[in-house]
Amino acid sequence: MSSNNQQLVLKRRPTGMPTAEDFSYEDMPIPTIQENEVLVHTLYLSVDPYMRGRMNDTRSYVAPFQLNEPLAGGVLGEIIASNHADFKKGDLVTGNLPFRQYNAVHGSLLRPIDPSIGAPTAFLGPLGMTGMTAYVGLFHIGQPDEDDTVVVSGAAGAVGSIVCQLAKLAGARVIGIAGSDEKCHFLTKDLKVDAAINYKSENFSEELENICPDGVDVYFDNVGGPVSDAVLQLLNDGARIPLCGQISLYNLQELDHGPRIQPLLLTRRAMMKGFIVSDYAHLFDEGSAYIAKQLANGSLTYREHIVDGFDQTIDAFLGLFTGKNTGKLLVRAGEPEAYEGGTLEAAK
Amino acid sequence: MSSNNQQLVLKRRPTGMPTAEDFSYEDMPIPTIQENEVLVHTLYLSVDPYMRGRMNDTRSYVAPFQLNEPLAGGVLGEIIASNHADFKKGDLVTGNLPFRQYNAVHGSLLRPIDPSIGAPTAFLGPLGMTGMTAYVGLFHIGQPDEDDTVVVSGAAGAVGSIVCQLAKLAGARVIGIAGSDEKCHFLTKDLKVDAAINYKSENFSEELENICPDGVDVYFDNVGGPVSDAVLQLLNDGARIPLCGQISLYNLQELDHGPRIQPLLLTRRAMMKGFIVSDYAHLFDEGSAYIAKQLANGSLTYREHIVDGFDQTIDAFLGLFTGKNTGKLLVRAGEPEAYEGGTLEAAK
Repeated sequence: MSSNNQQLVLKRRPTGMPTAEDFSYEDMPIPTIQENEVLVHTLYLSVDPYMRGRMNDTRSYVAPFQLNEPLAGGVLGEIIASNHADFKKGDLVTGNLPFRQYNAVHGSLLRPIDPSIGAPTAFLGPLGMTGMTAYVGLFHIGQPDEDDTVVVSGAAGAVGSIVCQLAKLAGARVIGIAGSDEKCHFLTKDLKVDAAINYKSENFSEELENICPDGVDVYFDNVGGPVSDAVLQLLNDGARIPLCGQISLYNLQELDHGPRIQPLLLTRRAMMKGFIVSDYAHLFDEGSAYIAKQLANGSLTYREHIVDGFDQTIDAFLGLFTGKNTGKLLVRAGEPEAYEGGTLEAAK
Repeated sequence: MSSNNQQLVLKRRPTGMPTAEDFSYEDMPIPTIQENEVLVHTLYLSVDPYMRGRMNDTRSYVAPFQLNEPLAGGVLGEIIASNHADFKKGDLVTGNLPFRQYNAVHGSLLRPIDPSIGAPTAFLGPLGMTGMTAYVGLFHIGQPDEDDTVVVSGAAGAVGSIVCQLAKLAGARVIGIAGSDEKCHFLTKDLKVDAAINYKSENFSEELENICPDGVDVYFDNVGGPVSDAVLQLLNDGARIPLCGQISLYNLQELDHGPRIQPLLLTRRAMMKGFIVSDYAHLFDEGSAYIAKQLANGSLTYREHIVDGFDQTIDAFLGLFTGKNTGKLLVRAGEPEAYEGGTLEAAK
């Protein structure tokens, strides 16, 4: 066990695109645990686009990060010491924790993971919030039918790549939108979507229209902006649009302008719904069981984009906005000490 | 019975705001009725904003009007001659009919009205599509709770004025938005909304924010454009937005631009849904019964804006876009010949 601890602190609220100067890595002592607490050593951090919203001091669906306090998010960690009956040294857990190398946490805030169901990092991905987001957004808001065309933006990202596969499992025709030809290749070859399209293509709107000859029944939106403008033109009557993210807009300093969408939603009798996965906690057991089953039988695959080192977390986060990752972005922040279950990551 | 018949024909698809030259009143013979047809003399025409959409040759939720063919819409008429067992001379009926003074219509396309439930013209208003639109949009999409704040745009219009009252009946706090101080007075004095606000006011956004200190839970939108931009800023978590109309945008030649709304819908986990009343036909019996009951016990009132003369229909229609009407806009196109049930219109 290291004698040092570090935390990643928000020093300044970013204006527009965040920069390294908005954050700092700070040394701190390893905390002492109290009654019913455990000491968690951070092995992996989940780095997600929604965290950008929490860096603003504005109303959003998750409370803002506080200045001079650590960022927080999904963490996979190992129990190093325990004062809680449910946990012992060497256990792996996930939780929404401060971005520190070591956290003292009340045991009730942690979720034990069962490595027989999937690789430990999968509990930050398809078996964690990422997978639940895809599951509830697609199945409970999007509700694709067998004959539907489902379009997914940010399709090669953590959530999008799961949505694509769940929509295929539902029998729909699936179109993935991504930001590079490599990602499009990943979508068609690895995820088996029916077609993929690079939104940076000069004729994106026309290509999209050609690729969706029967219109769009479900648009799972992670991106927003001009990509969405093009998709919404193709909506069929009764279309459903789960709004999961708007990454193209997160770093804008003012509300972006674009074509008004209400006339499209009205004339197509379409439904658009913003959602946050935590509102659907009652569906997590059902969703986890479904995804675990698909992972087990090989119907669902996922890719991890791993960045090494706690001190690379900010660089990793910034890369989300330039499209560096394919699949789930994780920071490998530490190595297990007592865990004896073998490899932690997904098989390549 | 007159020996002349006239119809109101679409001569040219309007570009932007319609003008009188886009239409013509044409003489035609009174038709002869065939087996199972009745001859309907038009007494009142329902003149509604959604008809503007049908004048374009573009995809919308109702098929476009055809050039050189009559407009069509809600009609209250009297049976003048009948070859159908269910109807006799003097009966009053409603139907979606061509805008002609006399129509030969298959009996199956008509709905008999029961004047004991309400004044005959009410079957074009609160007891007709207008009322059903308010009922399904508010109760089945908006779903206001007792403690909710409900904002209604186009609140002094045909649908809006019923929505305001239904929301009050549901126990909500109700804010009506309209385009003149007279209309606002009507909203607060006659419809008993909690507050009304003139969107032409210089400080509209600020006034709206002051009047909605607890945010907005349901926004019933008839209008769109900048009025909606202001309301959407105030959405509470889990807000519902039934999209009923977008009258501010109907006459624009290109898709209007404005602030993108997806970030607001996302961060407030809000749901926006475009709807057309005909998709909810299974609710009409329930809705009619509810509204009839509220009319009977005096909990629901309505106002009619009556324009006299079939040849004034286009002027009446154009007036919708300059805010001339308060309540339901009707054209009084003819006088009954055999009907003996007394006055046809709502009591003043």
